[in-house]
Amino acid sequence: MSERRPLSPSARAGAIEPTLIRALRAGMGPETIDFGLGQTDLSVSEAAARGASAALTQGARAPYTPNAGLSEARAAVAAHVGCAPAEVMLTCGVQEALAVSLLGLVEPGDEVLVPDPGFPAYANLVRACGATPVAYPLSPPAASGEPWALDLEAIAERIGPSSRLILLNNPSNPTGTLHSADELRGLAELIVRHDLAWLEDAIYEDYHWSGVFETLGSLESMQARGVRVSGLSKSHHLMGWRIGWMVAPADLIVALTPLHQHLVTCAPLPAQLALIEALKTHDEAMAQARAVFAERRETVQRLLGPVEGLGLSAMQGAFYAFVNVRPWLSCFGSTRELAEALLREQDVLVIPGEGFGQGGAGFLRIAYTCGEPQLSEGLTRLVRFLETHRS
Amino acid sequence: MSERRPLSPSARAGAIEPTLIRALRAGMGPETIDFGLGQTDLSVSEAAARGASAALTQGARAPYTPNAGLSEARAAVAAHVGCAPAEVMLTCGVQEALAVSLLGLVEPGDEVLVPDPGFPAYANLVRACGATPVAYPLSPPAASGEPWALDLEAIAERIGPSSRLILLNNPSNPTGTLHSADELRGLAELIVRHDLAWLEDAIYEDYHWSGVFETLGSLESMQARGVRVSGLSKSHHLMGWRIGWMVAPADLIVALTPLHQHLVTCAPLPAQLALIEALKTHDEAMAQARAVFAERRETVQRLLGPVEGLGLSAMQGAFYAFVNVRPWLSCFGSTRELAEALLREQDVLVIPGEGFGQGGAGFLRIAYTCGEPQLSEGLTRLVRFLETHRS
Repeated sequence: MSERRPLSPSARAGAIEPTLIRALRAGMGPETIDFGLGQTDLSVSEAAARGASAALTQGARAPYTPNAGLSEARAAVAAHVGCAPAEVMLTCGVQEALAVSLLGLVEPGDEVLVPDPGFPAYANLVRACGATPVAYPLSPPAASGEPWALDLEAIAERIGPSSRLILLNNPSNPTGTLHSADELRGLAELIVRHDLAWLEDAIYEDYHWSGVFETLGSLESMQARGVRVSGLSKSHHLMGWRIGWMVAPADLIVALTPLHQHLVTCAPLPAQLALIEALKTHDEAMAQARAVFAERRETVQRLLGPVEGLGLSAMQGAFYAFVNVRPWLSCFGSTRELAEALLREQDVLVIPGEGFGQGGAGFLRIAYTCGEPQLSEGLTRLVRFLETHRS
Repeated sequence: MSERRPLSPSARAGAIEPTLIRALRAGMGPETIDFGLGQTDLSVSEAAARGASAALTQGARAPYTPNAGLSEARAAVAAHVGCAPAEVMLTCGVQEALAVSLLGLVEPGDEVLVPDPGFPAYANLVRACGATPVAYPLSPPAASGEPWALDLEAIAERIGPSSRLILLNNPSNPTGTLHSADELRGLAELIVRHDLAWLEDAIYEDYHWSGVFETLGSLESMQARGVRVSGLSKSHHLMGWRIGWMVAPADLIVALTPLHQHLVTCAPLPAQLALIEALKTHDEAMAQARAVFAERRETVQRLLGPVEGLGLSAMQGAFYAFVNVRPWLSCFGSTRELAEALLREQDVLVIPGEGFGQGGAGFLRIAYTCGEPQLSEGLTRLVRFLETHRS
């Protein structure tokens, strides 16, 4: 260990690994077609903008809100998700809801099960808690058009005496999978048997394209042992406004509110006001957003589906296609090198699957978050790239 | 230790002690005159509102910003404080800047020196890091009209092998003191001699009423060993919008950006846009705000100054009067009980000094953050209360 200087970062800060997503973005040019970042390109929903405008009228004040959120905002989320307002905390986006949940439940030395492939922030936050992320592999699709799946046996093998909590992302980033009711019931059984806590990240819940959308948190056996987080970043296109929530038993909300208070004081007021209005017309706003993304999803299916050798997993939820490019890896050492070549040769950015854990190696994540003509152009370039490099 | 249940809060969450401020507020009624909470009652500054409105125009998008902030926002802060943009990180208010700084520098087992009396969040955040807050006493004024002071000898006595960092709040909450250049130089010597890091909370820097305002961070010997945090909550009345910043050497900003990213992603976009505009006309906005508070400060001096036995410390900075009510404590067991009686009998809320640490016992913090007629009415009721209970 090197000598500690006055400004040496703490072990917890150093435990956070730089994400591959950010690293790749450094190679982008002004004309790059960006299938990289998981944010929509749509405008702030009208209702959200209207709600926030109340914060800006002449003479408006901007007091701190109660730490857990404005009572109207908590009530709006409660009505939206079907719980009591006391079971809701408003947060600075889902990211802060994840941070409060993990910092608030996990002790140093604990083990936390995280999906592989999965959103890299999960493992990083677990490490920042001084705990150990234990990757549980998702099963890749047996054939093109099939979904990724929970491998309950693999999860069971990874549960030990230090296991504290299991993290589930449903719909899943990067796989685009909606986990089935059967999978969720199986997972719930494991959770009960081993007396674990759970944390369900449902940020993509408004984007599901097939199958029935089930949630872990709604299962009877899962009550009083977990936290569900979500928000408006993806549904009302409020990414940068920072508004999310955590839903948990009221006594846990009370217990974790001081932690949230000491991290950020409260969720930003303009975004809380936006949320109150946005949830009033959520279904209409989502119908619009879903129509846009459904069309893009069709385009992905139409352009990438016929490519020989390319495995396109079922696009059931979120706005990601996760495609198997293993047949091309003999030309490139890794999917990362393939993605770097794609950026260099075709000016198209995609995220190599290993950015989401070793289980993602051999796959590319394509965020279909840009409109035409970029979407078709970028996909066409990807296909051209793959045809060129067919070995 | 009780059995760990799936949703048992972590030790770090449990280490945060409920603040007395919030506890007392539970006893407020709708007509209570509120000298309790440290936020201004003024409207969002015109420039800030104008800046944020760009986030709300028809068709506006709300992408994530770079984690450390929009480059224009970082440049605006850099020009404001006199540093390079790479030395600035935009945060969700000063609270998040404090959290990132402490979580990012302090290891479990470290000791962190915090002022007593002082803002209770400091000790709580230190405990949440698994570290130990060591209170350093500020010296109470020898006579009415004198300031509180740093007691360098007392600080030196509290520095030991585990000491990591010293926290300074200047201008000081709750004492209203501006620490002098001599005090700061003395403190800097101690910091260098013991190779400590420092964290300077300058959130009240725009409110100083007498003396010359010096900062620890500007001393040559303090370069590359500390972090200065501030924001627009108090100056542009943006408390609930959540915008603050940390200023530190560029390599520390780089090292702590992933921690900030994993807590909140980025500071809220509307508040970053507000900041860019607000700092363009900062001096004019502050001239207006300072005129309002200067008049209120005069009112406090005029109404409380003549009360026999009441010690009014020098009101040099921030918007707090910190008054010595020890002569009344024979009637009440503690300043807390006195404050509770004041709320019950006169419907006036003040914060008892022990809410800021044992060094504050015997004092009341009066936030002169409400206008007329409430300010004079509340102070008159306080005087009446004190006259009634004179022993």
